[in-house]
Amino acid sequence: MFELTEAAADTRNCANAIRALAMDAVEKAKSGHPGMPMGMADVATVLFQRFMKFDAAEPTWPDRDRFVLSAGHGSMLLYALHYLLGYPGMSRADLENFRQFGAPTAGHPEYGHAPGVETTTGPLGQGLATAVGMAIAERLTAARFGDDLVDHNTYVIAGDGCLMEGLSHEAIDLAGHLKLSRLIVLWDDNSISIDGPTDLATSMDQCARFAAAGWHTQRVDGHDPEAVTAAIAAAKADPRPSMIACRTVIGYGSPGKQGKESVHGAPLGEAEIVAARAALDWPHTPFDVPEAILATWRSAGRRGASAREDWEKRRAASPKARAFETFLKGDVAAEVAGPLAEFRVKMAAEKPKIATRKSSEMALGVINEATGATIGGSADLTHSNFTITKGMGSVRPGDFSGRYIHYGVREFGMAAAMNGIALHGGFAPYGGTFLVFSDYARGAIRLSALMGLRVVYVLTHDSIGLGEDGPTHQPVEHLASLRALPNLLVFRPADAIETAECWELALAQSATPSMLSLSRQNLPTLERPVTENLSARGAYVLREPAGGRDVTILATGSEVEIALAGADLLAAKGVKAAVVSMPCWELFEAQPASYRSQVLGTAPRVGVEAAVRLGWDRWLGDNSAFIGMSGFGASAPAAALYKHFGITAEAVAEAATGLIGAR
Amino acid sequence: MFELTEAAADTRNCANAIRALAMDAVEKAKSGHPGMPMGMADVATVLFQRFMKFDAAEPTWPDRDRFVLSAGHGSMLLYALHYLLGYPGMSRADLENFRQFGAPTAGHPEYGHAPGVETTTGPLGQGLATAVGMAIAERLTAARFGDDLVDHNTYVIAGDGCLMEGLSHEAIDLAGHLKLSRLIVLWDDNSISIDGPTDLATSMDQCARFAAAGWHTQRVDGHDPEAVTAAIAAAKADPRPSMIACRTVIGYGSPGKQGKESVHGAPLGEAEIVAARAALDWPHTPFDVPEAILATWRSAGRRGASAREDWEKRRAASPKARAFETFLKGDVAAEVAGPLAEFRVKMAAEKPKIATRKSSEMALGVINEATGATIGGSADLTHSNFTITKGMGSVRPGDFSGRYIHYGVREFGMAAAMNGIALHGGFAPYGGTFLVFSDYARGAIRLSALMGLRVVYVLTHDSIGLGEDGPTHQPVEHLASLRALPNLLVFRPADAIETAECWELALAQSATPSMLSLSRQNLPTLERPVTENLSARGAYVLREPAGGRDVTILATGSEVEIALAGADLLAAKGVKAAVVSMPCWELFEAQPASYRSQVLGTAPRVGVEAAVRLGWDRWLGDNSAFIGMSGFGASAPAAALYKHFGITAEAVAEAATGLIGAR
Repeated sequence: MFELTEAAADTRNCANAIRALAMDAVEKAKSGHPGMPMGMADVATVLFQRFMKFDAAEPTWPDRDRFVLSAGHGSMLLYALHYLLGYPGMSRADLENFRQFGAPTAGHPEYGHAPGVETTTGPLGQGLATAVGMAIAERLTAARFGDDLVDHNTYVIAGDGCLMEGLSHEAIDLAGHLKLSRLIVLWDDNSISIDGPTDLATSMDQCARFAAAGWHTQRVDGHDPEAVTAAIAAAKADPRPSMIACRTVIGYGSPGKQGKESVHGAPLGEAEIVAARAALDWPHTPFDVPEAILATWRSAGRRGASAREDWEKRRAASPKARAFETFLKGDVAAEVAGPLAEFRVKMAAEKPKIATRKSSEMALGVINEATGATIGGSADLTHSNFTITKGMGSVRPGDFSGRYIHYGVREFGMAAAMNGIALHGGFAPYGGTFLVFSDYARGAIRLSALMGLRVVYVLTHDSIGLGEDGPTHQPVEHLASLRALPNLLVFRPADAIETAECWELALAQSATPSMLSLSRQNLPTLERPVTENLSARGAYVLREPAGGRDVTILATGSEVEIALAGADLLAAKGVKAAVVSMPCWELFEAQPASYRSQVLGTAPRVGVEAAVRLGWDRWLGDNSAFIGMSGFGASAPAAALYKHFGITAEAVAEAATGLIGAR
Repeated sequence: MFELTEAAADTRNCANAIRALAMDAVEKAKSGHPGMPMGMADVATVLFQRFMKFDAAEPTWPDRDRFVLSAGHGSMLLYALHYLLGYPGMSRADLENFRQFGAPTAGHPEYGHAPGVETTTGPLGQGLATAVGMAIAERLTAARFGDDLVDHNTYVIAGDGCLMEGLSHEAIDLAGHLKLSRLIVLWDDNSISIDGPTDLATSMDQCARFAAAGWHTQRVDGHDPEAVTAAIAAAKADPRPSMIACRTVIGYGSPGKQGKESVHGAPLGEAEIVAARAALDWPHTPFDVPEAILATWRSAGRRGASAREDWEKRRAASPKARAFETFLKGDVAAEVAGPLAEFRVKMAAEKPKIATRKSSEMALGVINEATGATIGGSADLTHSNFTITKGMGSVRPGDFSGRYIHYGVREFGMAAAMNGIALHGGFAPYGGTFLVFSDYARGAIRLSALMGLRVVYVLTHDSIGLGEDGPTHQPVEHLASLRALPNLLVFRPADAIETAECWELALAQSATPSMLSLSRQNLPTLERPVTENLSARGAYVLREPAGGRDVTILATGSEVEIALAGADLLAAKGVKAAVVSMPCWELFEAQPASYRSQVLGTAPRVGVEAAVRLGWDRWLGDNSAFIGMSGFGASAPAAALYKHFGITAEAVAEAATGLIGAR
């Protein structure tokens, strides 16, 4: 090795502290990924010691730079940094408990487990795409509160896997288009993925690719701190988003394993760790960091303290101080509850026969007037999803005053960006696509749920009721598959009133995302009281026959109309049918058992939903029937399809009669 | 308009026939997408009249060029072409029945609805990615049977939406890497998407982007037949995959709407159609094509007849004729059944305690030796999914003799490519990733199911049993969400024997894809007869207590071991518990009711699966309990997680006791 200057040696030692902690923690856990933290330690040291604007003592400072470890398997890089920098909630003991039950040092960074973890990462590509959302949110917030309160960067470390994932294309295309100049991606360009050399599977010229998307790009030796410093400085100065290809050696410092795929995702082993300690000139015992090096790091952790204090003063003096505080609280529910209650009354009086996607547009008109916190958008289906309302204004390159984002044909990128917007704080993002294409975004919907973010998915064209576009566009399994996801509210409103109720409930969540399943076809407004939000209980009795029930018909969304018509047919035959609307199974499940029993009753039950049965047996019980889909749909006008697939009032009545006969 | 030469006028008229049929069919259906067929009619005319190698009379000729309309909403382009070219199964009446129930002219092209529809398209980006699979299959087949039998091109028409989807990145990166020179993508570069001008959402330089991926690129006026001809000729000559940006006007020929988003997805309307007929100098009544123009088209439809006849002769004379025929039949089941039966016997004797991902590797060793039709791969998790077996050889640029594809970190691209490989014929593709990342590929898994393709998804690390990687990597909802998908077999084998059985069943399907949910953790081999494939019935009684059942425990995969241990605990208390292994719900559902009743019994039931409950009530009935997950997992060693989440033999026994007490 060449002779290092004192400053350079200091930087190198600081980086070696990361390397040692990473290899020690993985070794102790007998599980984890040492390769990436060891490879990117130099880059991370430069970034956090020379560039990142933050104050480790105040990890929630709103104007901090955001850091996203998109290559989340390298979590020990983040944990080592947080420990070294002196973040709260990250002790040496936590590092020693890496990947153990209850420790904040989970296998992949988990949002909410430790201060300073800006987002959950691990599913590749999503950190990058979420960071794009954060960078959008930064500009949106700045456009509202001024650059003196909001002016920070978003840094991402991404790996080869992140850039191979298709999601990365959606993210960088959107970021390049919107000219997110404060977004800087450090690519860990180590030419190794799990199967082996990346040239097993890719020949991509990443710099040319990012340049094609309108990015500033550079190539740099990721083990040369001064070169990395110059590159980040140039990236900050450029008016485009910036990608720096950091050429690194995976597992740098492990003489026997560096540069090989074997160092990616397994402990080095005792002997190799001894060899690495020697190679790195790091004679310290496991988890020990010499005081001088720790002091350098801790001082770096407070480097931003005075900037933060200056910012606090600016905020206190700002005429927008109170508005900013209110904004960050994000209490949208309080703003929209009154106007939505009025809207419900209006709908009950007017009784429109409209699609719930149209009801949603009307409810959004009320919501977007009542609050400035909502940020709308669609994956290029604005005029099908009905997600834009009067006066929102489109977000455009250089102009973030608008409230509507044209996400392009990028469902996954939209969902991940919404996660980033929600994480950044204050805003309540919602975005639309067809329900069937939630499949494309599913990876990010899962992270909305896992992180507990208030994100609302507006999913229209929610059944065979969309008609002629056919089975590729007709969801049949999506309600079930989304109901299977923990911590997601799946709303399927039946009319304009329920749609407004569901919107209110979705926006009132503090730690749960929601999706609204909305019809393309027109639906009547149901007769029911509007004095309270009935959807809040998840399911409720819409029609209770006098003199007890012979049968209970359960339905959601567009099939509630069919259930009611079925009940009418039964009534004509003297059969007493109750009808239950179930706009949200999850909320119903959360009700007391006594309420659930009262709603479900003890009579035989018929479920009706233009979707597969999976999951319905939870509500139907043993003596029951289900009217719905058992396979894919078909291309034809909606009415023909409902008839063909037997989702009709007649079928409901017949099923009910069959059950009663069987008593 | 400038004066056209006679030949050019002929080409223009042929293109106008497409335009007229498209606008007439959409108008009659009152639904559909006229913009794209009208915009790309000139390009399509050049492609089909001058380049495509096919014989309309024999749409299944194995060496035909493949054509994929990735922008599937433009289905009338395809249907008009097929009618004009004289494909069987596409009459004028079919065009008049566009988007009506039972017609082959579905809203989006549906594989199997009409000869010549090579794949189902509509979900954007998937046509392109499926075509990559077809182009891979073409080279794989050529490597086995020679270029004299297999030497054809794959042409794709893709729209802006296809290229915005992230999937397109995965597809073009893989295609560029593998140097798929016979793949030619015609991009309908019309600058319009549904929301409006594409510059609302993208600033991508698509040619630069494709070039970065190793593609040959050109820009051409898509309304200039000679320029398009020259471009396709140059594309064919280039040794790289080729993208031609065809600058077009969406809805070309509609004077009032062309170039606007309003022409994308709605009928033109009567008045505008009159205007378009005038502008195009197309005075003919709806659906009428003048005899001369139809004759030109029909003759183009037989242009390849002599080439096909020559090919038939070459095939007949080839020493590989019989092997090629056998290959195309793709009867893998017959080849593997015997060796797999032997393998089961061996496992029953050896009783290994291994992960089912390992069992799968061993079964694959048997399978890949018994047949040459399997094409393996993984989305960069080869040594975790255990999907490669001895001697497979990797597919590499310029060398397609191998049988293993390193798909890169591209789950969606892998799944779509597998669909393309299956569609191309003969091969049985399988590919691996973690079960949790099936989310990323879900759009293509859905198309496997909708098209009914024999594709096998090898999904390992199938529960909290993967341990330390934590909740981002631990599926809990995926079994339910995949079981919700129609026409997909979800296999979750419990040991090495069931794994081999499930593999056998998956490969025996002719019109259904399968997924294998496989454990990371070791599992014992169960005591059971191996004389027949017990998994074929979907569920079976693994342990029947003497003297009748007090309780029935139902379990799948890694939880069968826990169910058995629970039954042991119960036996010690004198409670008689039956244990049922349920490796495939779909196959069990297809059994006679009498078999199902016999297996399920009438005693109270306990379900055990390290996943969410959704769907289980179908099997559990009213007097039941479920031991599983109710939320996301956590990062910790697997044993700690099973204990923490209460998925234990003790919990099973306790639940059973509770039910029996409640009798």
